[in-house]
Amino acid sequence: MRALLSTPTGVALTRDHPDPAPGPDESLVRVTLAGVCATDLELARGYMDFHGVIGHEFVGVVERSDRPGLQGRRVVGEINASCGRLPRGPPRPPPRRRCRAGNARHCTQRTVLGIAGRDGAFADRLVLPDANLHPLPEALPDERAVFTEPVAAAWRITEQVGHPDRALVLGDGHMGLLVAAVLASGGADVAVRGRHRAHAGIATALGATWHPADGRETGDWPLVIEATGSSHGLSQALAAVQPCGTVVLKTTVAGAHDLDLAPLVIDEVTLIGSRCGPFAPAIDLLASGRLDPAPLVHRVFGLDDGERALGEAARPGVLKILLRP
Amino acid sequence: MRALLSTPTGVALTRDHPDPAPGPDESLVRVTLAGVCATDLELARGYMDFHGVIGHEFVGVVERSDRPGLQGRRVVGEINASCGRLPRGPPRPPPRRRCRAGNARHCTQRTVLGIAGRDGAFADRLVLPDANLHPLPEALPDERAVFTEPVAAAWRITEQVGHPDRALVLGDGHMGLLVAAVLASGGADVAVRGRHRAHAGIATALGATWHPADGRETGDWPLVIEATGSSHGLSQALAAVQPCGTVVLKTTVAGAHDLDLAPLVIDEVTLIGSRCGPFAPAIDLLASGRLDPAPLVHRVFGLDDGERALGEAARPGVLKILLRP
Repeated sequence: MRALLSTPTGVALTRDHPDPAPGPDESLVRVTLAGVCATDLELARGYMDFHGVIGHEFVGVVERSDRPGLQGRRVVGEINASCGRLPRGPPRPPPRRRCRAGNARHCTQRTVLGIAGRDGAFADRLVLPDANLHPLPEALPDERAVFTEPVAAAWRITEQVGHPDRALVLGDGHMGLLVAAVLASGGADVAVRGRHRAHAGIATALGATWHPADGRETGDWPLVIEATGSSHGLSQALAAVQPCGTVVLKTTVAGAHDLDLAPLVIDEVTLIGSRCGPFAPAIDLLASGRLDPAPLVHRVFGLDDGERALGEAARPGVLKILLRP
Repeated sequence: MRALLSTPTGVALTRDHPDPAPGPDESLVRVTLAGVCATDLELARGYMDFHGVIGHEFVGVVERSDRPGLQGRRVVGEINASCGRLPRGPPRPPPRRRCRAGNARHCTQRTVLGIAGRDGAFADRLVLPDANLHPLPEALPDERAVFTEPVAAAWRITEQVGHPDRALVLGDGHMGLLVAAVLASGGADVAVRGRHRAHAGIATALGATWHPADGRETGDWPLVIEATGSSHGLSQALAAVQPCGTVVLKTTVAGAHDLDLAPLVIDEVTLIGSRCGPFAPAIDLLASGRLDPAPLVHRVFGLDDGERALGEAARPGVLKILLRP
């Protein structure tokens, strides 16, 4: 099959990658649409030292499954695959909880689709545990459903800090705009600060307001979401948040950077790392039309043009790139 | 009067510092005992660019006050003095809260005893707002009461994260040991990790266990308190905390340092800055004898020996140094 691989020398499309073979309690999925995320670009640059098929945002059709009700269904899939076992070693007080129900995302032995130990979605087919797959309602087209994974990641913030009245999002890339859209869909007054004036209309369409990243911070926001993907984002967030306020780190920046955390202590800020989220509310949000991600789509490429698609996704100001196998 | 000053060229004792003059709603306090804190040592090295009388942990006797009931009382004092006004500018939705009741600690116009804009406690006399002063019960001797401020700072953690079942404290200096003592007094199973084997017995006396800082982290602690005062402490804390766990930053490290926050995002850790705390529960804890800080006292110096006292406090492994005017 065709697959877009991260290799030690960069990203390369191959046409003769072996089809993945489902293990016990796993399904084979034919990918119908996939989305490019900033993490894919970092993986292509060597992050996580992952060499395999990249891609983790997808919609597909189940081609082979032993789980009743999955065969032939259109699905999206959660990307963290737990080892399914309780951790080794004697139980501790309180018992270790990593592989318990609902905690696959933090299993230390997990594989992650297209990120760690498991081939991903920029390919004709992929394999995931049956338990990771979510059948889609008919009314939700692929072009919206492909946003389920990043919308779930944005929704995760509301699990961690509740539904805010007002929030500032730093970064007007697709993650920042999706976070703004999710918070706005819950009734929040959301401002997005970024470098791309051309995204102002998109922010408005998603229910938020756009402002230039001009460094003028009021220090008055109860909640700031850092989604710039840059090493300066956290310092900006600490300047923007009010004393005893909350900063959510939504994007990872690989490697060590110079940071001064004294303001975090002096202002007693809470900093929360936020990664993957629950798929069910994300599917609801997209299927109900309360969140329409259409304005975020920059362009759809064929999988054969995958290398070019990643190059395009890396250009400043480019929003969501989709890949159609 | 005598006073220990932070100057651009270091710390110096002066014998002819003018007596401080109380403003409206302020009291004049004669200091009877003061404690040296790591922040004092940082201020002496130029942190905060503060040039004035240092010191903020103290016990004293009110010499002059218009507030009924304060005159002649033995007191301790909260160190943050609010400007007492609501912030300027039009109200915002929700209204800005900085100078509201209970939020003096985060007033942006605040002065801080011996730290910012207000002369401190390493002197014969100091001035604080009447509202900052807490009369002490007879049964609480100066030698214990002088720990009220740092015990309140340790207690602050329980306001932020509740009373934990178990916790790891990184750092076996006086702040780390006090945090351990406060959490242990609430019934927590507390381990302290540090570099000073000689503090093992003190940790035990305070209700905790001591372990060497050997870098072997289990990644299994639900709560880790960073109290090393070193730039490496946060990385150690992130290695020690379990996924979705909490790290409290209890000590400030001035300036920028190389930090990799990717683990915070990947493991969805909550990082909480923690500074000053409430005096009432700290006084209760000390007066009841549930927390006896006596094992933490390294030595008592006279104020005349203040310069030498600060030198002694800066030596590795030295716990609390007290100054008696």
